[in-house]
Amino acid sequence: RDAAAEHAARQRLDRMTKPPGSLGVLEDVAAQLAGTAGECPAPLPTPAAVAVFAGDHGVHAQGVTPWPQEVTAQMVANFATGGAVVNAFAAGLGADVVVVDVGVASPVGPAAGLLDRNVRRGTADLALGPAMTLEEARRAVEVGIEVATGLAADHGCLVTGDMGITNTTASAALVCAFTGASPVAATGRGTGVDDPTLARKVDVVTRAVARVPAPPTTPEEALAALAEVGGLEHAALAGFLLGAAAARVPVLLDGVIAGSAALVAAALCPTALEHALAGHSSAEPGAGLALRALGLRPLLGLDLRLGEGTGALLAFPLVASAARALRDVATFDSAGVTEK
Amino acid sequence: RDAAAEHAARQRLDRMTKPPGSLGVLEDVAAQLAGTAGECPAPLPTPAAVAVFAGDHGVHAQGVTPWPQEVTAQMVANFATGGAVVNAFAAGLGADVVVVDVGVASPVGPAAGLLDRNVRRGTADLALGPAMTLEEARRAVEVGIEVATGLAADHGCLVTGDMGITNTTASAALVCAFTGASPVAATGRGTGVDDPTLARKVDVVTRAVARVPAPPTTPEEALAALAEVGGLEHAALAGFLLGAAAARVPVLLDGVIAGSAALVAAALCPTALEHALAGHSSAEPGAGLALRALGLRPLLGLDLRLGEGTGALLAFPLVASAARALRDVATFDSAGVTEK
Repeated sequence: RDAAAEHAARQRLDRMTKPPGSLGVLEDVAAQLAGTAGECPAPLPTPAAVAVFAGDHGVHAQGVTPWPQEVTAQMVANFATGGAVVNAFAAGLGADVVVVDVGVASPVGPAAGLLDRNVRRGTADLALGPAMTLEEARRAVEVGIEVATGLAADHGCLVTGDMGITNTTASAALVCAFTGASPVAATGRGTGVDDPTLARKVDVVTRAVARVPAPPTTPEEALAALAEVGGLEHAALAGFLLGAAAARVPVLLDGVIAGSAALVAAALCPTALEHALAGHSSAEPGAGLALRALGLRPLLGLDLRLGEGTGALLAFPLVASAARALRDVATFDSAGVTEK
Repeated sequence: RDAAAEHAARQRLDRMTKPPGSLGVLEDVAAQLAGTAGECPAPLPTPAAVAVFAGDHGVHAQGVTPWPQEVTAQMVANFATGGAVVNAFAAGLGADVVVVDVGVASPVGPAAGLLDRNVRRGTADLALGPAMTLEEARRAVEVGIEVATGLAADHGCLVTGDMGITNTTASAALVCAFTGASPVAATGRGTGVDDPTLARKVDVVTRAVARVPAPPTTPEEALAALAEVGGLEHAALAGFLLGAAAARVPVLLDGVIAGSAALVAAALCPTALEHALAGHSSAEPGAGLALRALGLRPLLGLDLRLGEGTGALLAFPLVASAARALRDVATFDSAGVTEK
């Protein structure tokens, strides 16, 4: 980020007709946006685009969710016809939705707004061995970079989204692998699984993470850990964050799938999250562990646990409002308001 | 609220293509909106209108703030020309802003969007005696009712706003008077006052609240306590909430000024807050005390402490998004998505 633009934003925030600091967290957001844009005030981060990366998971065979695997493909069709929550939120917020098949188990589409970038028809079972090959992981990362680069050309803010039955299992494994957190602490109920299913999920995560000896310290180790215990949508999201950073566009993270992918992105490139903001604090425990490890404070706390990018999208108006305030609010001088 | 519509909303939320409960707090919001509207799905709560009630305070003479009193009138002019933070946020969110002079010390306006409803040119010093007469308090309440009734005719959501140098002092006194909280716990730094000023503020609140022997239990006692230690904008906001309730329109509360006025409204009419939502958790301690006493959970927590309605306005997209989801999202049946 551009330190001079960020400093100018802080100075302008203190000259605006309001008590210093009274916009709380939004002052940090406004300054970050200026740093990302390299100018103060930053341009409005509009319109937003949410990219929903969809993938399936071989670990579904372990009985870690009550939902059938075909729901991933069915929800991709639902996104394409505008029937999901992410579509409703996006319509209200003026955001575009792009759905990317990066790893769905069965063929989907074609449909408007649906990109076929399938790298593999679902991962292998991460309970038993590597979820994917290094080459597959790399290709999925490249899909994310490509999508971010394309969207950044005509959008002011990128938003992470995901769909994949069982993807909270892979997310928990990634959080453990990249932060050293314990599987019990990082594994949550996802869509709301019962106690026996949660116990199976913790066991699966424990076995998978045992194959990653220590948190990755190099890009090569990060890619290997991603391939070992991650998902194709996680890989694509890591690439999406890299692409957003390269394009210097603000990017909003959704819940635990984005958070775990952000850990991968940061291990692939230390400055990958300079332009990222955490949209919300998901009810899934791994999300909080990931954000703390990354030093990101979530903007919203609404106990959401849906995914799709819904929580990040809901934070978009806060980001846009911060930018508007920095751009449009009068200063004490310009408005003729007396200072204390 | 309409219990049948609320029940229908809960049932629809469980049939929508998402895991049950996965929209967290927004499911409560969606159900409440249906209950307020008396139909499921509820109509979209758009557009929003924020009413900024402005007033001055005789207690300014006690040195409880470093800001000159004339800043109230200067900020009213700033609102009227669109230069304040509330204007910037409203422009981005498609909300209208109405400014109401209910008690500014010096003449303001006329200007577009500015209503002259001045009841008195600032309150008397609440440290020394009643801030206003019962009749003045009543007239200011009626101003709020009138404004809410007018805005409800062509807006789907009302938003509380306020401006008044030193109004966090009157707010703290109202919170203490209506909840029994201690002045030390309820009095905050407002715009960011230093330790000696905070100590004076606590002393002033303590002396004022001593004249209200116990929390009001009747509407007559509530009006008397309001007149004794409140402000004209607090009175108008209490009326604004009553008017919104009578019109059955959702209303979003901003920070401590709205929270303390909501305590007054609830004491004037026990069902006054049925259609209210708390926009955010202000950094001012009295706000949290008021919301807890009222059983309201704030939607946002961003450490805001600006007032003007800014925190409530930022929560508006969440409310609108909850309504959109309830109205537009497909069900498992309609989308052909398999259930677990």
